[in-house]
Amino acid sequence: MNKIKIGIVGASGYTGSELVRILLNHPNVSIEYITSETSAGKPFADLHGAFRQLMELPLIKVEEALDIDVDAVFLALPHGVSMNYAPQFLEKGRVVIDLSGDYRLDDLALYEKWYQKHVSPELIGKAAYGLPELFSKEIKQANLIANPGCYPTSAILALAPVIQSGNYEESTIIVDSKSGTTGAGIKPGGSTHFPSLYGNFFAYKVEGHRHQPEIHNSLSKLNSKAFTIKFTPHLLPIDRGILSTVYVKPSETTDLNNLRKSFTNFYSGQPFIRITDAPPQVKNVKGSNFADIFPYYDQENGLIVILSVIDNLVKGAAGQAVHNLNLRFNLEETAGLGLAPLNP
Amino acid sequence: MNKIKIGIVGASGYTGSELVRILLNHPNVSIEYITSETSAGKPFADLHGAFRQLMELPLIKVEEALDIDVDAVFLALPHGVSMNYAPQFLEKGRVVIDLSGDYRLDDLALYEKWYQKHVSPELIGKAAYGLPELFSKEIKQANLIANPGCYPTSAILALAPVIQSGNYEESTIIVDSKSGTTGAGIKPGGSTHFPSLYGNFFAYKVEGHRHQPEIHNSLSKLNSKAFTIKFTPHLLPIDRGILSTVYVKPSETTDLNNLRKSFTNFYSGQPFIRITDAPPQVKNVKGSNFADIFPYYDQENGLIVILSVIDNLVKGAAGQAVHNLNLRFNLEETAGLGLAPLNP
Amino acid sequence: MNKIKIGIVGASGYTGSELVRILLNHPNVSIEYITSETSAGKPFADLHGAFRQLMELPLIKVEEALDIDVDAVFLALPHGVSMNYAPQFLEKGRVVIDLSGDYRLDDLALYEKWYQKHVSPELIGKAAYGLPELFSKEIKQANLIANPGCYPTSAILALAPVIQSGNYEESTIIVDSKSGTTGAGIKPGGSTHFPSLYGNFFAYKVEGHRHQPEIHNSLSKLNSKAFTIKFTPHLLPIDRGILSTVYVKPSETTDLNNLRKSFTNFYSGQPFIRITDAPPQVKNVKGSNFADIFPYYDQENGLIVILSVIDNLVKGAAGQAVHNLNLRFNLEETAGLGLAPLNP
Amino acid sequence: MNKIKIGIVGASGYTGSELVRILLNHPNVSIEYITSETSAGKPFADLHGAFRQLMELPLIKVEEALDIDVDAVFLALPHGVSMNYAPQFLEKGRVVIDLSGDYRLDDLALYEKWYQKHVSPELIGKAAYGLPELFSKEIKQANLIANPGCYPTSAILALAPVIQSGNYEESTIIVDSKSGTTGAGIKPGGSTHFPSLYGNFFAYKVEGHRHQPEIHNSLSKLNSKAFTIKFTPHLLPIDRGILSTVYVKPSETTDLNNLRKSFTNFYSGQPFIRITDAPPQVKNVKGSNFADIFPYYDQENGLIVILSVIDNLVKGAAGQAVHNLNLRFNLEETAGLGLAPLNP
Repeated sequence: MNKIKIGIVGASGYTGSELVRILLNHPNVSIEYITSETSAGKPFADLHGAFRQLMELPLIKVEEALDIDVDAVFLALPHGVSMNYAPQFLEKGRVVIDLSGDYRLDDLALYEKWYQKHVSPELIGKAAYGLPELFSKEIKQANLIANPGCYPTSAILALAPVIQSGNYEESTIIVDSKSGTTGAGIKPGGSTHFPSLYGNFFAYKVEGHRHQPEIHNSLSKLNSKAFTIKFTPHLLPIDRGILSTVYVKPSETTDLNNLRKSFTNFYSGQPFIRITDAPPQVKNVKGSNFADIFPYYDQENGLIVILSVIDNLVKGAAGQAVHNLNLRFNLEETAGLGLAPLNP
Repeated sequence: MNKIKIGIVGASGYTGSELVRILLNHPNVSIEYITSETSAGKPFADLHGAFRQLMELPLIKVEEALDIDVDAVFLALPHGVSMNYAPQFLEKGRVVIDLSGDYRLDDLALYEKWYQKHVSPELIGKAAYGLPELFSKEIKQANLIANPGCYPTSAILALAPVIQSGNYEESTIIVDSKSGTTGAGIKPGGSTHFPSLYGNFFAYKVEGHRHQPEIHNSLSKLNSKAFTIKFTPHLLPIDRGILSTVYVKPSETTDLNNLRKSFTNFYSGQPFIRITDAPPQVKNVKGSNFADIFPYYDQENGLIVILSVIDNLVKGAAGQAVHNLNLRFNLEETAGLGLAPLNP
Repeated sequence: MNKIKIGIVGASGYTGSELVRILLNHPNVSIEYITSETSAGKPFADLHGAFRQLMELPLIKVEEALDIDVDAVFLALPHGVSMNYAPQFLEKGRVVIDLSGDYRLDDLALYEKWYQKHVSPELIGKAAYGLPELFSKEIKQANLIANPGCYPTSAILALAPVIQSGNYEESTIIVDSKSGTTGAGIKPGGSTHFPSLYGNFFAYKVEGHRHQPEIHNSLSKLNSKAFTIKFTPHLLPIDRGILSTVYVKPSETTDLNNLRKSFTNFYSGQPFIRITDAPPQVKNVKGSNFADIFPYYDQENGLIVILSVIDNLVKGAAGQAVHNLNLRFNLEETAGLGLAPLNP
Repeated sequence: MNKIKIGIVGASGYTGSELVRILLNHPNVSIEYITSETSAGKPFADLHGAFRQLMELPLIKVEEALDIDVDAVFLALPHGVSMNYAPQFLEKGRVVIDLSGDYRLDDLALYEKWYQKHVSPELIGKAAYGLPELFSKEIKQANLIANPGCYPTSAILALAPVIQSGNYEESTIIVDSKSGTTGAGIKPGGSTHFPSLYGNFFAYKVEGHRHQPEIHNSLSKLNSKAFTIKFTPHLLPIDRGILSTVYVKPSETTDLNNLRKSFTNFYSGQPFIRITDAPPQVKNVKGSNFADIFPYYDQENGLIVILSVIDNLVKGAAGQAVHNLNLRFNLEETAGLGLAPLNP
């Protein structure tokens, strides 16, 4: 079989580097180029020493990349930058998988409220939301795929079976999420300065985080019954991993058995979802594309509690992007994504 | 002034060692003995090398300690062990400050449901619950003080102003807590084995933790209006610190200003409570007796969110115990507890 | 091509689990059984939750394993246990790759000085020392391969080019090594208790560690000129990785260029050795079979300084064992071992 | 007794903040001002949230500070900045304790080789080197005290008894040091970015670090017999602590007993030196002014090995500076420095 030719735009950050790691191990893909505006000309391993001898392509500028013939392009760029390039790559006939937040929301006003002025607003609402467990049909046909945010992936996967079932009160669903630091990107800053964060833990953006509308936007496609989301992110002093603890008040009493059954049914046949029988641990998915989900029903309080864990750089970013590529190009769904977690 | 003579029963663990650290710096206290059943005869510094040259008392057995004349005894023993000794020390006329869970609940049945058969049930309900910000009157007169659990301290301090105000729906209050590993004690075990926990994070006892009834038991003294607590503990890969994220549905709408005012009023004059204007960080209280509390009102969801942080070994255990000693013996409230947090 | 059938004896620990991780990704190998004396009957994922859905074989007892027809057996057992089983598996005609220290030393007396009484002394000196970069010829023909220790792997790779060249004074070579905690195994203990080790760092066994004779034993095969080794191990508060800082006084002055050239020549064609041009970082080899080595010549002091890093569970244990399997069965040298390091 | 009035110039960094922490607990000192050029006007707790309610002084500019009447000034400024202010404060009659490297070396050329052009060269060689265990006589009379670097403190304390004894070969002494990240300062950067450093470990400046001449400069005052130092710094993924592993070839054979005796004699009466009988741990000195030192004689190799640990921010910076203040002003040597380490 001919290999799918792909390009990675924005390979200097953690998401781009993780795409390289996964795609080097993918049997049906060839990486044609990797770009970086600030490091063009340098070898990739100068930025990411781990890849010495593994990735010999030099970094190029995105302008050069536009004309290189590839089937698909991953945009691993910051929010607000992707939207400058997505239209150009689409025009060249590439399938675009965008890992930024620029096309995740269906609603321009909502985007501009939480992000900034959009420069390609005509594409808003045209992208498939790239969460394969919920939207594989759309993904298979899309030329623009908006790869979900890391927090939203963990929250949506935890909530989807409940939202679809309709068994929730029309009140606030609480998503208390805790993320490792790679989610904050490769650029050094005060809150990720090692001496400050080591032994530390805190919540941030308690007043509102842009992933809250993303969670709500996607889940509300599953059910017309209203709900709101209170999303509280916290920063964990680890490198990789997100755990979300989700609390939902059901509209009708249920029991643990039924709840678990609804989850196993909902995710039946999904290769990357593992319904666990004990609270999941972030380290159990480290480096892999798994999402481990533990649904629990608290009889005493009449409360559904769901715990989910993912590796934010894999299922929460690069791995899910490759899953989307596989779906879009009719490849084996797990191609390149079969790696076991690093244990311990 | 004559110094208060005290003994520490159970000095081999983290709580006992932390009592030593604090009391060595206390101007009005003299440590008369320290005990350990398993290490009696050994120098304290053999167990805790940090204290070489600082604590020269040898460890003795508790049987020897019973007859040594002291004013007060700290029991830094496991749950189920304290209740064997508290009556004996009380009989000898010592003030007993118990750091275990043996006398924290008012209700024998509740204790025996969550812990085990009680051997001194006559003392159940006789102890003052040693949370100085709420129960200083009782503490000042008590001969048996039940020092609160670490999680309950963080949760109760976050909730007390709201519960007292009555502004909460009669529904479930959510306490999502994250604790460092010293809370699990000094005994090695699988979940605190370094390679397993490093880079890891998970919830545990989602089905129910004995600190849930303790939180409910104490808070319900503040208001007769009903509520229930859903308490979810998580294990953080750090040594010290607890952060609790608390969600309460108010029965009447409020605003951020009023909410903050109710907290500053409630804790007015309390030397160890700091109402912060940004989400608090566990590292900002490390090694100190402070509780940093951040009350927030989420207008959009109509939800009160409170974040609190403590050092679980200080405000959550040994520091609070010394605060109780100070109150009981009419010492300066902050004596021995004025140390700044270790930063960073 | 038919797959090589293998068994893993001792799959409950970190080394056994790492063998599973690597071999699941190996195109030419099929895992026929995995054993554990204490957990026989349990699913593997009960011990290592990371492998849920990936490894469905149940654990069996080694007695059952003896008669199962396989081509090769990995013994991932503690020192002193391996030597009970190696002879039995050899008698059954299996190739035995032993990851313990039981057959690494050529000299029975030396073994019994540093370990214990040997029960299969007739095999001492019969095993190939499984460091492929130095002993591939022996490995290809051996039925018993003694897989090197983790510290020795890092030290020997750093020193081999210098020792072979003979350019060292007949005095003490210093190997100052720092290891992550997985090297201490899966069994919880005081020094790897999370609260003790977090934020901590220390040396241990300064008076002598059994890896010192192993380092000397193997290196002295490269040159008859005498040398001694001072090996000082330290425990790093991380999970994976060893860094060794090695100091050698050369017998003749050299320069950086020549030194580097001798390293690149020595390791020419070796797929897992990367000679770096800056001090190597343990995280750059995490999860991979690479050894990154940085040779430096300190002109001012006339001193050779070599830094080497490996992942102790991969190049220091399971990965090297699979490399040995590949060599012994004429497979592609890198089969199953091509995975990029986890970055970051 | 009247309190000694002091000022802290440069309170935005970790060293300045640590001075505040220690001096708040000092019975004989009053802090008159704290300065920061970039944050003048802000409350100190805006930069260091840990100090809320503890330090209410606002930050001022150093220009304002010059005329405020104090007895002593701590300069917690970067190298190259201190030398601009030290002469001005000396002219005003303040005792100056400089925590930068600007006056540590006796030799202008050496300074300019390793640092930069000096702007107050007339003071070079006039400062007392503020290591109290070696130079208390000079410190007591000095108006300018150059507080030692953190690495040099750990290395010099480990080596001083051996150097003074003269029992070393005239060859290279190896100082293999490992430091926590607070030594790199409060300014975020690539090598201290949390995701990069977590789980990582590496050496740096293998080609030469400016602390090497400082170590040599100070130790050579103890003995005219020549020696050279090879100093290799490594970055530990922890916040506080330095461990140095030092290797010395003695010129005459010795034994463990004599070696230990020479250390206990040398440091007899020194309140902050603890000669341990097992390898010291960095966590055992955390937050305290102790240096724990373990001298060992390796009979087999005829090699002296010394391990020392300090908290780089206390004994390696602010604590030692306060010790110098105490000596200079005839205060109790341990005043303000009696705090026990934080354990664990």
